[in-house]
Amino acid sequence: MSAALEGQTRGAPFFRSRWVPRPPHVRELGLDAGLPAGFRAAGVPAGIKDSGKPDVGLLVCDSSTPVSAARFTASGTPAAPVLLTSERCRLGALRVVLANSGCANAATGQRGLDDAAKTQGAAALAAGVDPAEVALASTGAISHQLPMDAMLKGILAARGRLSRDGDSDFQQAIETTDAFEKRANLEVELPSGTVRLSAQCKGAGMISPRFATMLCFVETDAALAAEAADLLLGVCVKRSFDRASVDGQLSTNDTAILMCSGASGVPVASESEDELRFGEALDALLRALAIMMVADGEGAKRLARVVVGGGAFDSAEAAARAVANSPLVKAALHGGDPNWGRIVQAVGAALPGTAPLAVDISIEGIQVCSAGTAIPHDQAALARAVQRQEVEYEIALPGVGAETEVFFSDLSARYVSINADYTT
Amino acid sequence: MSAALEGQTRGAPFFRSRWVPRPPHVRELGLDAGLPAGFRAAGVPAGIKDSGKPDVGLLVCDSSTPVSAARFTASGTPAAPVLLTSERCRLGALRVVLANSGCANAATGQRGLDDAAKTQGAAALAAGVDPAEVALASTGAISHQLPMDAMLKGILAARGRLSRDGDSDFQQAIETTDAFEKRANLEVELPSGTVRLSAQCKGAGMISPRFATMLCFVETDAALAAEAADLLLGVCVKRSFDRASVDGQLSTNDTAILMCSGASGVPVASESEDELRFGEALDALLRALAIMMVADGEGAKRLARVVVGGGAFDSAEAAARAVANSPLVKAALHGGDPNWGRIVQAVGAALPGTAPLAVDISIEGIQVCSAGTAIPHDQAALARAVQRQEVEYEIALPGVGAETEVFFSDLSARYVSINADYTT
Repeated sequence: MSAALEGQTRGAPFFRSRWVPRPPHVRELGLDAGLPAGFRAAGVPAGIKDSGKPDVGLLVCDSSTPVSAARFTASGTPAAPVLLTSERCRLGALRVVLANSGCANAATGQRGLDDAAKTQGAAALAAGVDPAEVALASTGAISHQLPMDAMLKGILAARGRLSRDGDSDFQQAIETTDAFEKRANLEVELPSGTVRLSAQCKGAGMISPRFATMLCFVETDAALAAEAADLLLGVCVKRSFDRASVDGQLSTNDTAILMCSGASGVPVASESEDELRFGEALDALLRALAIMMVADGEGAKRLARVVVGGGAFDSAEAAARAVANSPLVKAALHGGDPNWGRIVQAVGAALPGTAPLAVDISIEGIQVCSAGTAIPHDQAALARAVQRQEVEYEIALPGVGAETEVFFSDLSARYVSINADYTT
Repeated sequence: MSAALEGQTRGAPFFRSRWVPRPPHVRELGLDAGLPAGFRAAGVPAGIKDSGKPDVGLLVCDSSTPVSAARFTASGTPAAPVLLTSERCRLGALRVVLANSGCANAATGQRGLDDAAKTQGAAALAAGVDPAEVALASTGAISHQLPMDAMLKGILAARGRLSRDGDSDFQQAIETTDAFEKRANLEVELPSGTVRLSAQCKGAGMISPRFATMLCFVETDAALAAEAADLLLGVCVKRSFDRASVDGQLSTNDTAILMCSGASGVPVASESEDELRFGEALDALLRALAIMMVADGEGAKRLARVVVGGGAFDSAEAAARAVANSPLVKAALHGGDPNWGRIVQAVGAALPGTAPLAVDISIEGIQVCSAGTAIPHDQAALARAVQRQEVEYEIALPGVGAETEVFFSDLSARYVSINADYTT
């Protein structure tokens, strides 16, 4: 087991990264605490994955007035389930999620869309809802058509096993290369009362289009308006999954869905203290999950955060992405090598036309570069600092302005061997 | 020795890639043919590199009316020699190049600029020219100050060894991690007479900021006007070094310089047949060198070319870069894995807002995807095709329009181990 995976195993606290402390009004429940009131889930093996593990999952909200929100990949080649769900569903009032692993249903053309629509109809029939209330999510190999017999069989079997504590099976049904479970059950104290939050998430960092993708499903028994759910999910996704990169590879299938049953009877009104606190909890939840995905980056040994301040937002964002996605920076991170010249190089490459750029660089609080120029620093302390499991890079661009961050993992020889021969 | 390096050793023809055939009016001379008339070069060990190999090089054009052109990195954090040369030199009339390896003189601030200026002055004095006629080029570790004693000693020693066949020593003085020599001596038949072209080039693919960078110096005895030299170099660099990527990492030090002595007496007039033919030869020379750099990408086993046609230029360029720099595509190339779903993913990720994108994909002439959808193909033939040393991907975007290409190498476990611990 790699260093980044140590402490990711069952029993470790969910809020385990120094970058995402547990908010004081949030309490971690056990992984067997079950879903919030108003939700049932199931996951069954339908024979899509060779492993025989669960591969079809069903998640149902039993509320008569469900509220939801969703976000999808920005890819120009999205998978059929993404196209269908984003274009044809009532995204603010979803009642069901049908998910599968083992097949992404991507690059499958019209037949892929037709098949997705059939599974949507079957899940709607099984759950007694309208097809437009059923969201679809798939993950797995690109270019294969959906195995329809298995999907339909799986839907029927899953319907018979829906239960309040089916989240563990549902989680397994969406996992592919994940080395550890990314799941949480939280209790959140709001001024108006206590609510629950649960999440099931998969992704070894959005990185492998063969096994593909990040998926995340969040359930709460809080009562939110659709606009508030959409706003909160949008903001929190931007601060979490949009800030995570294993290899900069956007998937065809990325999907995040928030569903609210309202069963707690606790209202979360717009612009209230309740909404602020609920938002803090959702934010911490998704950021912790995003960091877990990065920690599960294929072959990952170390985690890193690059924080870029100053300059215009576009510049800060470009610099942060360039550092996070630089194979040279990532290889140095892997080796515990304080080779910060590569950060100068990555930032400079990302910001053409700015020469000479007066960039400041600090690693774990040790400043190594001021206004673009190397400065004396404690090299022994730096060498120790980059050997830690989490390494933070701070970059200051000239001027005041933006602040952005990206979480990323290292690049290992194992990443290459994992990705060098999937299909042969 | 890796597969990509087989056949790159001494004795192999210079035009060895199917992607750059030798133009019929170009003849390869031996590597010991010497520089074109009007040029002398030298390379000496000055103790900058630990290896004891040559690390200071001097290249001199003896013409009374030299003509030259230069191109530099677009990095926002260029090295001192790049800043100094691009801002203070007479780029159209350079007489001398002073190059060193073992130190990039990057992230070195004002002291780096001052030191660079001193070496420029010393080289000017040694060669009896104006400092503004001396171009500087450095490659090596970022963040170290230039070792001035060694540089000055090296300049004096190199001056005493300048000779017409000093190109081999000069080449060694600019090399760092290069696994094989990237050098050529060519004879070019023009309608108005025969001219010579020589080039010395270093770079294991612009990839390692510790050893850093691509440098390329081209000499000819043809007589060009400064405007023509600038135009030809600009076009040819765009079609060669700008089209090569090992890991998408732009260096702080990239420099390409063309120098023309005119000693052949053969004029290359603007918009003449001579210029057309000379341009073809220069184009083939730089493209072949760019492919050699990619073949020398650290740990590289295979070479690839991605050709993107159709759509707007920006879209085609983004798609080509996304494929060439995708660690997933590169790992599959390494493994000889026909995992073309990753190409769909990379193109889709590069072109948000285009869904559903009707992309066509062929690998080595075998079409696998039509209008975004997988199509039946000979899988056994595809599996064989991706095992070749050179693999070509063709991507068609909707609409007629752009055509672009990028040469790239695979991503190997060795790349990671080479780059994981340089400075420790």
